[in-house]
Parts: sequence; structure tokens; C-alpha cells
Amino acid sequence: MSRTDKPTIAVDAMGGDHGPSVVVPGAVAAMSADADFGLALYGRTEEIQAELDPLETDGLPISIVDCRQDIDMGESPAAAIKNKPDCPIVRAMADHKAGKVNAVVSAGSTGAMVAGSIFLLGRLPGVNRPAIATQIPTIRGELLMLDVGANVQATPEQIVSFARMGEVFVREILGVQKPTIGQLNIGGEAKKGPDLCTASYELLSREDFEFIGNVEGNEFMLGPCDVVVTDGFTGNNTLKLVEGFARFLAALSERDELSDAEKHAIRPVLGVLMRDFSYEVYGGALLLGVAGISIIAHGRSSELAIQNAIRQAWMQIDHDLPSKLAAAHDS
Amino acid sequence: MSRTDKPTIAVDAMGGDHGPSVVVPGAVAAMSADADFGLALYGRTEEIQAELDPLETDGLPISIVDCRQDIDMGESPAAAIKNKPDCPIVRAMADHKAGKVNAVVSAGSTGAMVAGSIFLLGRLPGVNRPAIATQIPTIRGELLMLDVGANVQATPEQIVSFARMGEVFVREILGVQKPTIGQLNIGGEAKKGPDLCTASYELLSREDFEFIGNVEGNEFMLGPCDVVVTDGFTGNNTLKLVEGFARFLAALSERDELSDAEKHAIRPVLGVLMRDFSYEVYGGALLLGVAGISIIAHGRSSELAIQNAIRQAWMQIDHDLPSKLAAAHDS
Repeated sequence: MSRTDKPTIAVDAMGGDHGPSVVVPGAVAAMSADADFGLALYGRTEEIQAELDPLETDGLPISIVDCRQDIDMGESPAAAIKNKPDCPIVRAMADHKAGKVNAVVSAGSTGAMVAGSIFLLGRLPGVNRPAIATQIPTIRGELLMLDVGANVQATPEQIVSFARMGEVFVREILGVQKPTIGQLNIGGEAKKGPDLCTASYELLSREDFEFIGNVEGNEFMLGPCDVVVTDGFTGNNTLKLVEGFARFLAALSERDELSDAEKHAIRPVLGVLMRDFSYEVYGGALLLGVAGISIIAHGRSSELAIQNAIRQAWMQIDHDLPSKLAAAHDS
Repeated sequence: MSRTDKPTIAVDAMGGDHGPSVVVPGAVAAMSADADFGLALYGRTEEIQAELDPLETDGLPISIVDCRQDIDMGESPAAAIKNKPDCPIVRAMADHKAGKVNAVVSAGSTGAMVAGSIFLLGRLPGVNRPAIATQIPTIRGELLMLDVGANVQATPEQIVSFARMGEVFVREILGVQKPTIGQLNIGGEAKKGPDLCTASYELLSREDFEFIGNVEGNEFMLGPCDVVVTDGFTGNNTLKLVEGFARFLAALSERDELSDAEKHAIRPVLGVLMRDFSYEVYGGALLLGVAGISIIAHGRSSELAIQNAIRQAWMQIDHDLPSKLAAAHDS
């Protein structure tokens, strides 16, 4: 690896549906004068080099870390992390732990990123369960939802920890002075919902932040608050339903029952959704609560999504987010 | 109450946001030659009569059952059922239990309808937990989802019972020979999701019906199967997210960031959604698993929604649905 004084972002060049052909140009495009970092590309050197060759990279702090193993689809993430030391995610996490790189970005297996981050980086002090946070575009600007699937179950104390991490992220990275926090639930009242929600409501009310109470699914896309907390099962289901709306509209525009005028009408709406409400703008989900910076890009990531995922990593480095997340749990 | 040999549908005339002014004309409009039932309208006689007077009801088997109590917003449904014998839901359920009416329809409090149905009618033999089922329009026709909120938690055995009830409803009422059943989950694999989902998957696989496995939120509105089973918290959250989509598009069409052409484009799409994907077409949620017929219309119900909720009740009477639901649990 080339030496540099700049922070270095490790990128799993083999990850995602398209591998190096999308990840390498996306990563290089993320480099700019105002985001002053080096890149370490993890994967098969020859494949990465073939993608770098046509790009203008003279003088840029880009290195390749050769890795020869892959995590297979359907392989247990925990087993892969243990048994495949030479796959990009494991190598990159080990280097992050050793201080050789400052963040890891992958569009590969979410499970392997979560398992690799937790096993190899460890948790931040005071954090019981790291959570996957994702930014969701709404009518009133983006909201941050967590957990969207690092764990399938949660305790009330973990929900409070999610709220703390979400608040710190929105304040530090997005610059919102006093972020508002809501709990996803099936009713507004404190006593509504399953035991997890009523107990979490009680704990959240006692915290020193702007807890606005429960938010419901029918107001979710209107943007009721800055941070929405929920357990990973509910968060993941909610995220998938929101993602499914664009698929629904696309399918709707092909319906025989519609007039041609109606079919034509749907296309510009899809265009607006793709432009203003696309995950590509955010690029990656954020694993918050591990002792490091771990960004999980969508498997279907485009070059733009990869570029934005790497910019996410840069912002977290630049704001020293892990220290601030740890400080929020220091009580 | 007037005597008639026809089945009689009890209607809470005071329920919903608009009370008798919407419920009474909606109920009368539901009567027709091919749906041969009588109506018993429960509520304040003078208010109901005032709505009946301008309508053509000569010779129609319509009676009024005077009730003078109301369930207040925010009142505990269980307490209301116990302490207010003269409110429409309680009177109607008691008459249903006594065999004087054959179904109850209300656009009033969902909680009171669930509590009233369970306490006053009781459960069907073999049914541990009644569930609220709702029909949701999708690209490939409607699907029936249950539970959407009768209970906030469920056991794997209850999920199987929901699947049995959903299958019977879709076969008997909608005429689908071999309905397909899916479980809402955050991944396709049998081992995905929380314990409830993995245990339910196992049990559902052993049943004698077309279990297609897990379905995910991003394919939900495409219509992956005829019946989707889930716990009441997840089902209610999912239903609210789906309902929120139209609100989102309506808000989107007002955005300053959009061009006028884009704003105009969204309106016909909303029109299609309102026409083809509106809850009014279905009219009511169905409480399945109680020893009777209990239809919960939306609080914001229009006359059309009330009319369709009453037609739902009629179809369940005509097909003797409770007996068939009980038979599906007789093993």
C-alpha cells in the first residue's frame, strides 16, 4: 500500500452486482480537492488495474490491496468472516482495525459487512448493538431511519441507543441543530403498540432530546421528523415497502386497464421519484455503533451511488463521527 | 324491530366521521334484489329517521333500534363494551349473539368493534385469536392481508390460523380455487427474520395449502400472492405505509421544486390510484375468527364505502363464512 498522510478509504472493489467495472470508476470519481483522501482498492489486482488504466489517475493517492477470496451468495456471513481472511471485506476491516485505513466501503454482502465490522472492529464503548441507518428522502427533506436490519430484534435500551446515534449523525453530518426523533409505531399514543414500543416510548421521553413521540406509516413519507427509530425487522420491512413504491408505479404504467394518456402520465412521476427520491443520492447505508466507519452500499449500486457512498465515508472521517457517537453513550 | 324472514344486517348508524348522514344513505343503497337482506339501523331514532325520510324506502325491510349511548374517542374499548350496554355496537353485538341479526357493520371505533365482537360473540371453535383482514389492491389484483391490528403480537400457531382463515375467505368469497399464501418477511429464505417468522415458516410449510414462502415489502404492491400473513403490528404498519403513498404523491404534486408540467403529471396518477387502489372499493376490514360476522368500515368512510362494507357482510352471510372458517380449524 502506498503511504500517504491523508486519510485512506478502503473500498471493496469486487462488491456489488457489477464489481470493479462500476466500483472503480465510482470510487475515483469521488476524489476531489475538497474531499482530501486516499483510496485503497481491495480485490483482484489485475481486474482493478484494468479498470484504472483508462481513467485519469496520475498523481492520485490510489493503491491496490490484492485479495483472492470471495464471499459466495448464500454463504453464512459469520463463517465467511472467520474462514476467508483474504476476501476484500475481511482484509479491509483488519486494516481498518490496525489503523492502516480510516473507513471501509462495500457494495457486497450486507451480512458480511455487519459481521465483519462487529467481529473485526468491535463495538464503540457503551453501544450494545450497532444499527444500520439509512437516509430516506421525504417531502420535507430526508429522514434517517435506524435500525433497518443489523438485528431483527431490539430492546428498549437499544432503541434509545439508536436514537442517540441518529441524533449525533444528523447534527454532526447534516448540520441540524436540534434533530427531532420519532418512534415508528401503529398509533400516536404512548400506550400504543407492542411492549417494545411502549417501553421505548417511556425511555425516549426521559432523554435529553427532541422526542416528538410516535410516528405512523401513513405520515412517514411526508417527513415527520429527522430521525425515526425502530427495530431492525420493522425498519427493514418499512424500507422495502418504500422502495417498492417506484416498482409499483413502474408496473402500474404498463397496465392494460389504463388509457394511453394515463400511462404517459405516470412516466414523469417516475422521473421525479428517480431524481429526487433515489437511494443513489445517499449511496450507502451506515453501520453506526462499531469502532470505525463502515458504509454498506446497495448491491445494485451505480457509479453515482458508489461515489456518494465514499463521500459518506469521507464525511464521517472528516467529522470524526465514531468519537462523537461514543461520547453520546458516555453517561 | 320488524320481523322478517330475510337475514338482517345490523348497522351502527352513528359510526364514522359523518354519522347517520353518510351511514344511512350508504346502507340503504346497499340493498338490492340480488342481495336480499333486511337492515337494522342502530342509533338515535330521530337522527336516523331524519336521514331515512328523504330516501325511497317504502316496502324495504328497514328497522331502527334505538340506542342512546356513545363511545367517546380515547375511551378504553374494553371498558366501553362493559359499561355502555346502550351504545350501537354493544346492542348490535348482543342481538347478533341472540340470533336477531346476522352480521354487524360499524365505521366506529375499531377497538370497540374488536373488543365487542370477541367479548359478546366469542371466538369460533379452534380459533385462538381473531384477526383483522383487509383487502389491498395490487398490480395483479387484490391480496388479503391479516392480521392488520386485532393483536399487536402473535404466535406461530396464530399465524397458521390466520393463513387458514385467509385461505377460506379468498376461496369462498372471491372464488379463487387454490389461493396462494405468503408470509411477510425481510428476506426470502426460510431462516430469515425474527423467531416468529422462522417458526411460522416451518409450520406453514407443513400445512396443506399453497404456501409460496416469504414475500418482501418491495414486491408487496405487485401482488405476489392471494393471502399475506403477518403479526398485527407489522400488518398495521404495512397497511399504513401503503395508504401513505397516495398522501405522499398528493404532497409531491405541491412541491415548489417541481416544474408545472411535473405537478400536472402527478394528478392523473393520483386519479388512477384513487379509482383503482382505493379502500372504498372494499369498504371494510373483516374481523375473522369470531363466532359471527363483524365488518369494520373505515372511520372516514364515504357512502360508497359503507355500501361496500354492507355488501361484504352480505357475502359472508350468503356463503355462511363463519361455519367454513370453523371447519378449517377442525382437525
